[in-house]
Amino acid sequence: MNQGVSAIRWGGSYLELLDQRLLPLDETYVRCSNVAEVVDAIREMIVRGAPAIGISAAYGVVLGADERYRNQPENWREGLLEDVGALAQSRPTAVNLFWALDRMKAVIDSLPDGESPVARLEQEALAIHEEDVAANQRMGELGAQLMQGEQPFAVITHCNTGSLATGGYGTALGVIRSAYKAGLITRVFADETRPWLQGARLTAWELVQEGIPAALIADSAAAHVMKSGQVKWVIVGADRITANGDVANKIGTYSLAVLARYHGVKFMVVAPTSTIDMQLATGQDIPIEERTQQELLKLRDMQLAPERAQAFNPVFDVTPAELIDAIVTEKGVILNPDPAKMAEHMG
Amino acid sequence: MNQGVSAIRWGGSYLELLDQRLLPLDETYVRCSNVAEVVDAIREMIVRGAPAIGISAAYGVVLGADERYRNQPENWREGLLEDVGALAQSRPTAVNLFWALDRMKAVIDSLPDGESPVARLEQEALAIHEEDVAANQRMGELGAQLMQGEQPFAVITHCNTGSLATGGYGTALGVIRSAYKAGLITRVFADETRPWLQGARLTAWELVQEGIPAALIADSAAAHVMKSGQVKWVIVGADRITANGDVANKIGTYSLAVLARYHGVKFMVVAPTSTIDMQLATGQDIPIEERTQQELLKLRDMQLAPERAQAFNPVFDVTPAELIDAIVTEKGVILNPDPAKMAEHMG
Repeated sequence: MNQGVSAIRWGGSYLELLDQRLLPLDETYVRCSNVAEVVDAIREMIVRGAPAIGISAAYGVVLGADERYRNQPENWREGLLEDVGALAQSRPTAVNLFWALDRMKAVIDSLPDGESPVARLEQEALAIHEEDVAANQRMGELGAQLMQGEQPFAVITHCNTGSLATGGYGTALGVIRSAYKAGLITRVFADETRPWLQGARLTAWELVQEGIPAALIADSAAAHVMKSGQVKWVIVGADRITANGDVANKIGTYSLAVLARYHGVKFMVVAPTSTIDMQLATGQDIPIEERTQQELLKLRDMQLAPERAQAFNPVFDVTPAELIDAIVTEKGVILNPDPAKMAEHMG
Repeated sequence: MNQGVSAIRWGGSYLELLDQRLLPLDETYVRCSNVAEVVDAIREMIVRGAPAIGISAAYGVVLGADERYRNQPENWREGLLEDVGALAQSRPTAVNLFWALDRMKAVIDSLPDGESPVARLEQEALAIHEEDVAANQRMGELGAQLMQGEQPFAVITHCNTGSLATGGYGTALGVIRSAYKAGLITRVFADETRPWLQGARLTAWELVQEGIPAALIADSAAAHVMKSGQVKWVIVGADRITANGDVANKIGTYSLAVLARYHGVKFMVVAPTSTIDMQLATGQDIPIEERTQQELLKLRDMQLAPERAQAFNPVFDVTPAELIDAIVTEKGVILNPDPAKMAEHMG
């Protein structure tokens, strides 16, 4: 099964990341050879997308382990835990980052001093990566099944949730790939997803490569498109899902969920269980990242708004569980999520 | 009362339009000396905003009259009606254009052959312009009154409805000017308004000049901002209002109206009676302009989406009357508009 482009390439002693700031104009890989470079790559959004961030951070730990062991073979652990801490500081909202680092930390804890931790940590990072691809393919099947039994219809998606945002194949875009192959989907309306334009730059790029009929729309046009009646599902990814089924995802997701409910359009969230944070009771507890105002005031070097203008740039929002028809993970489908169903699913 | 910048300057034998494509980086006036140049200026959005389009078209008729009379003093009428027809073809959705041209046509019909129609038509165009400014100032007072009696609060506005979109002062932004002066408003959240970025480029520019505290937001962030509870009103303009109170306005307005209702935020439409089209029963009858896909795929010369990507770019949408709490015109306030109230208001 075609997984789409590889945004994350592990080179054994370095990590190569497709620079998503430059797509679709330039397909350039950035090489990260140490932890600081991986932290920067996550913070600067060379790599983005909750699963892809988690995978990249895991490989970052391997790079850190190599350097720490070379410098201090008898005491690599302390420095490496600092590296894990630095990686955890790179972005606040997506929980996959912390989940991947917790898996790496568990391996670190299990390893003896005086021996190289690199091979075992590399094995774990590769496993995290491979499991993500397998999870995406499974979610693709489950999500497509959920949409079966109706006439072909259009869907709306937001942000980028494809190969570029994950280990491969994609979460919401994976479901769209599978559903399109199954003949369920006529067309994808892709929100351009301001301010970073993940939809215009990344999702449109993946959909063109896949040959899936798609139309880019302004984020604000989604309601108008829903009103026309061609759309049966909104399908999105997630950056963190709390124990009650609330979902933090790219700014604009909550807006789509309200609009979908108003128009009788169904709303599906597709995310691996690594996105689920059972430690947080509700979405109100999720830290919402605010990025620089410049993302709205400028586009690359081009000034859009007046120099003295101010902007408010929260880059995620929280969609309450009651607006969600289905959460799809690699373990199955949770219809109308609530705390009991979430606990059972994760139990 | 400060009317803000003059986007439309009548020079007696030419029309000067502030080129709104270049704001806020460049403040350049484009000189139009004939009808074709005015048609292009409207079509290319050198001038935009429903009232400003109507005023510009009226001045265009004066330029046409001057040329037609000079060329064929005994038969200026036929050619001038062709000019009126060309101006009417410039943009389809805003009705102020047709309203202004109808006023000019009524004057044309009243004038004898063999005499210059220029002075009388110029008088009518100037009257249309002056009446628009007066209407805006009156609407500013009425809209602000409607918001009184509460604690100061934040508002959301969409697109640009200020001096740049009108003869001066503004419709929705006029209400915001008046309400801010009256101490009713703490802050304006201005939607950036993709794809043309009227909010980022024009509204933010006017708000900075006025010293009104404002934050630019991604269009998709409006729901998140409403959820925070600081916002009590969404205030927008209109391009056409039908006999039942449905409102066509910039794409994204309908989305805001649905979101406002969901969050218990009130929704105000501010437009002069020249925006009301009693000939159309409902908003479904309003022609919705689709502009080039390139407005989404590129920004100026910068390619945003892949070359082979496609876009859907409707630039207006229709908000049904039942989502509107108040329509404010220069004649008064229509609460919860319906056909009977609209007919009474216009009667």
